[in-house]
Amino acid sequence: MEQNTHNKIQGKVFEEFCDSIGRENVFDNIEERVCYSFDATKEKSIPDLVIRPHSTEQVSNTVSIANQHNIPICPRGAGTGLSGGSVPIKGGIALDLKNMNRIVELNARDLTVTAEPGVVTKDLQDEAAKHRLFYPPEPGSAGFSTIGGNVAECTGGMTGMKYGVTRDYVLALEIVLPDGSVINTGSKTLRSVAGYDLTRFFVGSEGTLGVFTEITLKLLPLPEMVGTVMAYFKDIDSALETTDSILIKNHLHPRSLEFADKTCIDAVKGSAGEKIPEEAEALLLIDVDGNKMNVANDISRIDVLCRENSALKTSIAKTDDERDALWDIRKSVSTSLFKITSMKFNDDFCVPRSQVREVLKKVYELGRTYSIQVAAFGHIGEGYIHLNVIYNDVKAVDLPVHKLVSQILDEVVSIGGTITSEHGVGDAKAEFTCPTSSFRRVELELAPHEIEIMRDLKKMFDPKGIMNPGKIFV
Amino acid sequence: MEQNTHNKIQGKVFEEFCDSIGRENVFDNIEERVCYSFDATKEKSIPDLVIRPHSTEQVSNTVSIANQHNIPICPRGAGTGLSGGSVPIKGGIALDLKNMNRIVELNARDLTVTAEPGVVTKDLQDEAAKHRLFYPPEPGSAGFSTIGGNVAECTGGMTGMKYGVTRDYVLALEIVLPDGSVINTGSKTLRSVAGYDLTRFFVGSEGTLGVFTEITLKLLPLPEMVGTVMAYFKDIDSALETTDSILIKNHLHPRSLEFADKTCIDAVKGSAGEKIPEEAEALLLIDVDGNKMNVANDISRIDVLCRENSALKTSIAKTDDERDALWDIRKSVSTSLFKITSMKFNDDFCVPRSQVREVLKKVYELGRTYSIQVAAFGHIGEGYIHLNVIYNDVKAVDLPVHKLVSQILDEVVSIGGTITSEHGVGDAKAEFTCPTSSFRRVELELAPHEIEIMRDLKKMFDPKGIMNPGKIFV
Repeated sequence: MEQNTHNKIQGKVFEEFCDSIGRENVFDNIEERVCYSFDATKEKSIPDLVIRPHSTEQVSNTVSIANQHNIPICPRGAGTGLSGGSVPIKGGIALDLKNMNRIVELNARDLTVTAEPGVVTKDLQDEAAKHRLFYPPEPGSAGFSTIGGNVAECTGGMTGMKYGVTRDYVLALEIVLPDGSVINTGSKTLRSVAGYDLTRFFVGSEGTLGVFTEITLKLLPLPEMVGTVMAYFKDIDSALETTDSILIKNHLHPRSLEFADKTCIDAVKGSAGEKIPEEAEALLLIDVDGNKMNVANDISRIDVLCRENSALKTSIAKTDDERDALWDIRKSVSTSLFKITSMKFNDDFCVPRSQVREVLKKVYELGRTYSIQVAAFGHIGEGYIHLNVIYNDVKAVDLPVHKLVSQILDEVVSIGGTITSEHGVGDAKAEFTCPTSSFRRVELELAPHEIEIMRDLKKMFDPKGIMNPGKIFV
Repeated sequence: MEQNTHNKIQGKVFEEFCDSIGRENVFDNIEERVCYSFDATKEKSIPDLVIRPHSTEQVSNTVSIANQHNIPICPRGAGTGLSGGSVPIKGGIALDLKNMNRIVELNARDLTVTAEPGVVTKDLQDEAAKHRLFYPPEPGSAGFSTIGGNVAECTGGMTGMKYGVTRDYVLALEIVLPDGSVINTGSKTLRSVAGYDLTRFFVGSEGTLGVFTEITLKLLPLPEMVGTVMAYFKDIDSALETTDSILIKNHLHPRSLEFADKTCIDAVKGSAGEKIPEEAEALLLIDVDGNKMNVANDISRIDVLCRENSALKTSIAKTDDERDALWDIRKSVSTSLFKITSMKFNDDFCVPRSQVREVLKKVYELGRTYSIQVAAFGHIGEGYIHLNVIYNDVKAVDLPVHKLVSQILDEVVSIGGTITSEHGVGDAKAEFTCPTSSFRRVELELAPHEIEIMRDLKKMFDPKGIMNPGKIFV
């Protein structure tokens, strides 16, 4: 679908971008542009122009010119987002930051790293590990997603149980504001409280307030080792009781506490690196880290707790390869579901931990009511669920799926949950649409006055509304 | 010093407050008011009225009426702040939140606690500990400061090395805005990214944007035990090398990594619970936590590292009493300095860890230049220094102290440090004044455009400027 703003970026304005940023960094051919029309959702919209800056100055020039001519700008990392955050739904410029991929400074003694937004998360983690330092946030996409995208969406990932999410590691930002001016927020020190916390305000703002051009992150000493247990259970209740047993009754503090249900297990069964018990209806994958003695001790305690809660089988990784094999089971869940369906709808939500059982019950109940298969997995230690709604009939996208999702989200919000825990709002979660109806899902959670305040903030920073329009707010 | 706004809160307006909040919660006698004229700084200003609300509704009513009549409101926890945050420098209402001190809900399975702002930090920690849960932030004032004050200032404290600061634990806030409306930010779930992060934007806003009436915090499983080592060194360099040895070379991750210099050590020597070597010019106090085996292992490694770095003496706490005795040495530093002086000026700053040696060198050099004694201690693992400038001659408050502090802060900012790491800006750090001159210290660190943005944000939330006026911005 071509955008009607395209004519804005021809002729004189096009030349202006080329003169300012360099013709070699401006792309208007359809082959390039189409590559920027999607992310990991089904959202799709072709930008009018692609710009690939190499420096803060080039970002600033791009934003300045766009602002002057009211041209939308959609910043983009690797396009791995799950809410449409990097899809240029209003056309305009796809601002691809992949050429800004330098690690500017990793100062081991400072326990900090400063990076450009296009650095791939795993590259940054690997660089830190060379100094025996640790950048904990680990989204499933870490191998290809970028730090800029991670900060824009405030991603969480597999280690959140012990280490929190991206915002907990961002110390300072260099930001190009919608008028092209450049500000520095925060401090590169491990602590600072000088003035309002613009840093964390910008984390998770989904490219709607400005473009990050430099990001300073806190690093931790690298744990000596990580230990892993996989446990299979005959029912979800046993698995959930085990999570309480680990965290609440035995106050262990795992690095990861992951879950997958029967549908997920069945989908990965054929290709898993170990034999999965036939009757398994839930799995828990648990990581602990620390020094060797500590890890060995915690792993054996967790193994016992799983067995005490009727685990059908537990496996303790003895080598890195065995560890990778167990994690492959968890990491392959989302894609393996395509073995049983050609279409699925991904969602993510989080509820208070004590409500996980209730919300899962409701999810499966609604699935039965509408004869739609649902699969749940995720960071269950934090009450976080990835919901996959599976359908093979394209017509099902329409009313049944719509009704199912809206009723699940109603339930989530009514028990104090959130409609997006690490995927952002983007446009996919701002409004949920199907051919015959739609509802504004962000409004399920946020009160009108709160949304009004957010809109006012958006307007203050971006009066012309050029930054990633159509995201967060409908 | 009486405030000239006093006449505003008599007659009809006074009655309006009494009718709305209850006469028994409104105090206009000088005996009450004078108790609200100070915090832990030397700032002093008597409010025109004291109001002690019991509920969100009463806070909302108070703020509404004040807003209508342009009366300043200065929210107050326990008044233990170190930057004048709770001093009503423009008169108006001291809003004492001590009666809002209920722990609304501690749900162990959710790993969250919701509390009113007047709950004393240690009471909340103790309540969590009953469930074997852990609220890590531990300011020196935890025994009497309140959660509301901690969140308003984004305090850090002794456990920051491993566990970060207050902002890392705040999940959701109920806030009365300057127009009296009530909003809820964030989510009581362990993760959420629904819309802009108003929660962390309000953390550390020092009562200038609204009043917190309910605070939801994340809790962690309580570590099984804490181990403590005290080590004395013949010079500061050896102590600093030990911190790098622990964190960077041996990637240990202590819960606390505290430092004090010779002046501090000499001040506590007489009353310390253990014999301190005569030639000690620096001490490190190190806590590690985890399960028993882990703690024993880490403590013995740290003991060895201290000795390898020429420690004169190390002490490992074998009991809780021994642990308390070692911590008493560190905790008594600030007050013990009054043994050698009747007056001191407290400051706090943070530099990148690798710059600690340089900045301390500069601090002592400047002390010698101006013949002023300086004492340094603090959370050195994070590059955080509490600076105490000691003077017995009241005339020294004038130019020499002023010059000393301004040159130290210039140095701090020039090497990438921050002028306030956990005390907030308040008015004491917004402008540094002495009888003959002054400078705006927050402007050393923040660029004019960044301050402008903060001012715009303040104006958006508080157009009449009633919330804690004169703080952060001069």
